[in-house]
Amino acid sequence: MSGIRNESPIAVLDSGLGGLTVLRALMARLPHEDIVYLGDTARTPYGTRTRQTILNYAHACASVLRSHRIKSLVVACHAMSAVALEALSAELFVPALGVIGPSARAGVAASSGRRIGVIAQPSTVRSGAYQSEIAAAAPQAHAFVQATPLLVPLVEEGWVEGDVPRLAVRKYLSGLVAQQIDALVLGCNHYPVLEPLIRSELAAASGREIPIVEGARALADELAALIEDKRLATQRTEPGQRHVILTDVPEGSAETASRLLGEDISRLHLTTIDL
Amino acid sequence: MSGIRNESPIAVLDSGLGGLTVLRALMARLPHEDIVYLGDTARTPYGTRTRQTILNYAHACASVLRSHRIKSLVVACHAMSAVALEALSAELFVPALGVIGPSARAGVAASSGRRIGVIAQPSTVRSGAYQSEIAAAAPQAHAFVQATPLLVPLVEEGWVEGDVPRLAVRKYLSGLVAQQIDALVLGCNHYPVLEPLIRSELAAASGREIPIVEGARALADELAALIEDKRLATQRTEPGQRHVILTDVPEGSAETASRLLGEDISRLHLTTIDL
Repeated sequence: MSGIRNESPIAVLDSGLGGLTVLRALMARLPHEDIVYLGDTARTPYGTRTRQTILNYAHACASVLRSHRIKSLVVACHAMSAVALEALSAELFVPALGVIGPSARAGVAASSGRRIGVIAQPSTVRSGAYQSEIAAAAPQAHAFVQATPLLVPLVEEGWVEGDVPRLAVRKYLSGLVAQQIDALVLGCNHYPVLEPLIRSELAAASGREIPIVEGARALADELAALIEDKRLATQRTEPGQRHVILTDVPEGSAETASRLLGEDISRLHLTTIDL
Repeated sequence: MSGIRNESPIAVLDSGLGGLTVLRALMARLPHEDIVYLGDTARTPYGTRTRQTILNYAHACASVLRSHRIKSLVVACHAMSAVALEALSAELFVPALGVIGPSARAGVAASSGRRIGVIAQPSTVRSGAYQSEIAAAAPQAHAFVQATPLLVPLVEEGWVEGDVPRLAVRKYLSGLVAQQIDALVLGCNHYPVLEPLIRSELAAASGREIPIVEGARALADELAALIEDKRLATQRTEPGQRHVILTDVPEGSAETASRLLGEDISRLHLTTIDL
């Protein structure tokens, strides 16, 4: 890790805009750190692609991040965390943290009876990463993992309330409710936008209040501990700089980005690159 | 067009699997022609990306097709047809036909009162290509174009009947029905899979039978005429060879491909490349 300095930025890598929910949590938890966010919006979504294609794309993203001399890497995309975390850490030679481990541990902590439901994109489900992280955190736990691919385009279309998303959520949750889950992990960064609807459908179908876990905050806490542990925290006391790099900025994406970030994206330093 | 031979293949270029509905129509209309299909499944969908990104991707696809010494090009993807047709034709130096012109002309022909509705992906809508092709075919016609991005993931998820797709279709069609359209063009190759549902929702909302136009057959007819006109038809009488090239083959895509093609995709010659 020669050349890494305390004042270097943290990188947040995502397949698109969804990881802005993670950027938001990191800005709140580590306000003095510089952060560079790379979202591969030109090739999103990764969640429906093969392992090899995700690895190829992760490699291309790593080349961009290398020039920013980052001190640590957060892989906000669940699909990339599931298949490319080790490769990215090795290639960039910095400590790396994916979103799945912290989410899985938070899901175990929230669950009373160790029956943990997870909803995620298809490639995350196929990778088995949630199943193995939950087993690592609590060997007696049962993980029930459901692929819910339509929830991403619903959020991107802005259909986050009303009959269409409600019935889609109901259909997707029915199998998990039948398994009597006692905690639900939202295994994709887009899903928290649908959280009120997921919460009410889950309560209606199960007849009780089931805790819902978003990984972003758990991840921010684990990253803060990692940076402390590696003695990599910034010494600065002024607010950190945030730089958002996207590979495509189609019409309407500023609105989606602001919805995910929780503030106006145009207030951050924004650039576009070809990848 | 030096070097082009009658026995060279026709190319069908698509952003993913949707263009297999066009391949199907071409196989029926031109059974003796060799056809090479390139679907950029690793970066699909194009319909939500910017013009420049679509042009970049089209250029990469053209490089692959050049090595196949094609005699003509069909751009099956509406988003690519809308923004990259001329660039592709110039780069490959062969006659090229997009899917939008034939679809628009068929829509005009099917319409009794020249009020033509079109449903399409966002980048196709933004390009204005349907509006201008319909105006070129019938200057007095009115075009009403609605972006319907959720219909692609619904088809890919296999949710083609039931409440969720029905209510999504109803919501998307309501504005077109209010405009009293008298023909509807399905401006994306995935949509024909939802045609029964679209037809019944359109009839229920409008109280009458409105003709629905799929571009694939119109395109096959126009391509046959183009090949005849340029004296490029094959002289062979045995069935043509079909070669399908994809840039990614995620789990479940063989089923989606067979659904779109109308026969088992594994019966065709299939290869995967990195792009």
